[in-house]
Amino acid sequence: MNQNNNFYLQEFYAKKFNELASVGGDIRRMFMLGQKLLQENPQIDLIDLSLGNPDLEPPEIVTSSIIKVLEKHEKGSHRYMDFAGLVDVRKFLAQELSHSEHVNINEETVYLTVGAAGGIHILLRVFLDQGDEAIIFAPYFPEYIPYISNYNAKPVVVNCDELHEPNLEDFRSKISEKTKVVLINSPNNPSGALYSKETIEGIASILEEHRRKTGQCIQLISDEPYSRIVFRNKTVPSILESYRYSWLIRSFSKDIGLAGERIGFVAWSEDKTKLGFINALRNSARCLGFVGAPRLMQRILPHVYHARVDVGIYEERVSKFIQILSEAGIKTIQPAAGFFVFPKSPIPDDRAFCDSLVSKGVLCVPGSGFGCPGYFRASLTQNIDRIEESAKRISNYKKDI
Amino acid sequence: MNQNNNFYLQEFYAKKFNELASVGGDIRRMFMLGQKLLQENPQIDLIDLSLGNPDLEPPEIVTSSIIKVLEKHEKGSHRYMDFAGLVDVRKFLAQELSHSEHVNINEETVYLTVGAAGGIHILLRVFLDQGDEAIIFAPYFPEYIPYISNYNAKPVVVNCDELHEPNLEDFRSKISEKTKVVLINSPNNPSGALYSKETIEGIASILEEHRRKTGQCIQLISDEPYSRIVFRNKTVPSILESYRYSWLIRSFSKDIGLAGERIGFVAWSEDKTKLGFINALRNSARCLGFVGAPRLMQRILPHVYHARVDVGIYEERVSKFIQILSEAGIKTIQPAAGFFVFPKSPIPDDRAFCDSLVSKGVLCVPGSGFGCPGYFRASLTQNIDRIEESAKRISNYKKDI
Repeated sequence: MNQNNNFYLQEFYAKKFNELASVGGDIRRMFMLGQKLLQENPQIDLIDLSLGNPDLEPPEIVTSSIIKVLEKHEKGSHRYMDFAGLVDVRKFLAQELSHSEHVNINEETVYLTVGAAGGIHILLRVFLDQGDEAIIFAPYFPEYIPYISNYNAKPVVVNCDELHEPNLEDFRSKISEKTKVVLINSPNNPSGALYSKETIEGIASILEEHRRKTGQCIQLISDEPYSRIVFRNKTVPSILESYRYSWLIRSFSKDIGLAGERIGFVAWSEDKTKLGFINALRNSARCLGFVGAPRLMQRILPHVYHARVDVGIYEERVSKFIQILSEAGIKTIQPAAGFFVFPKSPIPDDRAFCDSLVSKGVLCVPGSGFGCPGYFRASLTQNIDRIEESAKRISNYKKDI
Repeated sequence: MNQNNNFYLQEFYAKKFNELASVGGDIRRMFMLGQKLLQENPQIDLIDLSLGNPDLEPPEIVTSSIIKVLEKHEKGSHRYMDFAGLVDVRKFLAQELSHSEHVNINEETVYLTVGAAGGIHILLRVFLDQGDEAIIFAPYFPEYIPYISNYNAKPVVVNCDELHEPNLEDFRSKISEKTKVVLINSPNNPSGALYSKETIEGIASILEEHRRKTGQCIQLISDEPYSRIVFRNKTVPSILESYRYSWLIRSFSKDIGLAGERIGFVAWSEDKTKLGFINALRNSARCLGFVGAPRLMQRILPHVYHARVDVGIYEERVSKFIQILSEAGIKTIQPAAGFFVFPKSPIPDDRAFCDSLVSKGVLCVPGSGFGCPGYFRASLTQNIDRIEESAKRISNYKKDI
C-alpha cells in the first residue's frame, strides 16, 4: 500500500462492493457505447431503447391530489410515522387488495415501501442468511443478482421455455435444503411474459410438496411492478391466492407513472402463522435504513389508486414494433404488459448483435444481461414514430446480415 | 421441523435478521411499557419523551414550493432520474455547500439520498467487508449497530468524556488494521453535544497519522441531521475542511421538518483521488434498492433550502427542561442543537430509573440504549407546558428517592 498520496480511493472499496457492482454490466455497457458514439458525433440520430424509464405522464389526478392534501394544511403531515406507513392508507390498500387478490388482507398485512426495490430488500433481509439460496427465473431483472448477493446468499437460476414461462421440472430440480426464497417477476422484465395460472399453481404445488416432505417453508416473493398495466383481455393470477407463503410486491412507478417518487408496498394474506410479520418488516426496514415510504405520496394513494397511465399507448408501440420485426423474420413472444419487448437476436451472439446495432442508430440490451442469451431487450419508452423507425432500422439490419 | 401447519413463520426468519433485530431494544421496551400502561389505564396522563419524532411544522414555503413546481406541469417530472439526483439540484447544493463547508464541491461530489439513513447505508456498502471494523462514539444513535452489522462488520465503541466529547486517546487505541470507517454524529443524538473543532481536528490528525504509518485510508463519515438547527452562537466545524477522506451526510428531516418525506444527501470535497466516487455510490444504491431520493422533494430543495423550522422553540424547551432538572440537582450537559437532552440518571441504574419513571407519568429512554449507562434521554418534541410538567415530575421523583 502507498504511504503517500499516490493512491486512488477506489483501492479502498470493499471487495464485496466490487463484486456486487460488477454485475449488471450489459445495460451500462450499452449506455456507455451510446455515450461514446454521441461524443464522437453529436449529430448522430441514435434511438435509445436501452433504459427502462417509463415515459408516460402520470394521470392529472396525481397533481390535483397532491395539491388537495397539501391545502388541508394538516398539522404533523410531514413528520415521521409508523415505518409500515400511514394506517389509513394501509387500510385503504388492504380493502382494495382483498378484493383484487381474493384473499383477506388487513392493515397489519400491508406495508408501504420505498418503491418495489425497497420491498424486495426488506423481505430478503428477513429470510436470507449467508450461504442460503434464492431461486430466480431467466430472463430475470438483472438487479436481482446483487440484491440477493447483498445478503451473502446465492442466486440460483431456473430456465424458462420458449415462451419465457418457467420450466417447472428445472425448478423442482433446483430446490435444495438451502433454498429460502423464490423470487418471480410476472409480468416480466425483460420479456413481458405473464406467467400463466397453471405455472403459478405449479410453482406453488412444488413448494407445498417440499414443505410437506421436509418441513421447510420456502417464501415466494412476487415482484409485480407491471401487473396493473396489462394489455387488453389479460389478467394476472393472484399469487396470494395461489400460495400461502407468498409476498406480493408492487410499485406505482409504471402504472401511475411515479417512478421518481419511490412508492410501493408489500402485502400478504391474513394468517395466524404469520402473526406479527409486520413487525419483522419494520425491524428489517429499520436495519436497512428504509425509514418509511415518502409520506406525501402515501397520502395521495387513496385518491390516485384507480388511475392509470394510458396503457393503450404502450400496447400500440409494442404491437407496431413486433409487427415490423416479424415482417423481417425476427420472432418475438407477444408481451402481456408493460413496455419491454424481448425479440430473438437475428444472430446467435446477442452481445455482438447489440454492439453492431449501435452503428445503425439503435441501442438495445443483449439478453445475456438478463440471463437469457440469444435475445435482446428493447424498452419502448419513446413515441410511436421513433419506435417505428427503430424497428425499421433493426429490420433493415437483419436483411443486410 | 414440523411437517404440518403447526409452525409459525418466524421459525423461518434468518439468523442474521434475528441478530440485527434484537438491537435497539431500549426505545422499543419503553414504548411497550407506555402502551401497556395506557391499555391498563387509558385515562393516564403519560408524557412520552421516548421517541425522537420532531414536531415542529415545516416552514410555509415547503407547501407553496411543492405547489409551484407542480403547477409548472413539466413533462417527465415524476420519471426515474440519475440515481445521484437531479443535476440542477446537485449544482445548487454544491454551490451552497462549497460556501458553507469551505471546500470545493461540485455536482459530481454531491449525491441526493433517501434521508440520512440512506446516505449512511450507501457509504457503508462501499467501504465495509465482512470482519471489518467501524468506530462509533458513545453515546451513539442505536441504529448504528445494526447498520454496521448489516454489512457483517463490527461496531467498535469509543468512549466519550463527561461532556460527551470523544476521548481521543481511547479513539487512537481502538484503531486497528481492520478499521475501515469512523462514523461520527455531531450535534449528537442523544446528547445534543457538538464536538469541538479541536476534537474534529484531533480525530482527523489521528487518521492522517495512521495513513502515513500504514498506508490505510480510513473514511470519516459525519452524520449531521442536526447541524443546521444549532442554538444561538454555536457553529458546527466543517468536517470536509478538516479531513480529506470525510463524507458529509445531512437530511432535511429536522431543520426543515420533512422527516416523513425522506430526503437527504452525501457530499464530499473535490479531489483527484476520489474521481468517479459518485459512480461507486450509484452502484451501491443500485445494489441496495435505493433507486433515488423522492424526486418531488428534490425539486423543491433550491426553494426551501434556506428556510428552517423555528429552532428557538426547541432551544426554549431545552433550557426550561434543564433548568427545572438542575434545580432538583439533576445534571445535564447543555445541548448545542436539536431537541434531545441527556441528563445524568438520578440513580446509577438508568434502566431501573426509566422503568420506575413510567409510573410517574413520564417516558424516557435509558442511556444504556445509546451505549452510555448512567444517563437518560428525553426527546423534547411536545409543547413547552408538557415539557415543563414532565421536568417537574422527574424532579419530584428525584426528591422522593
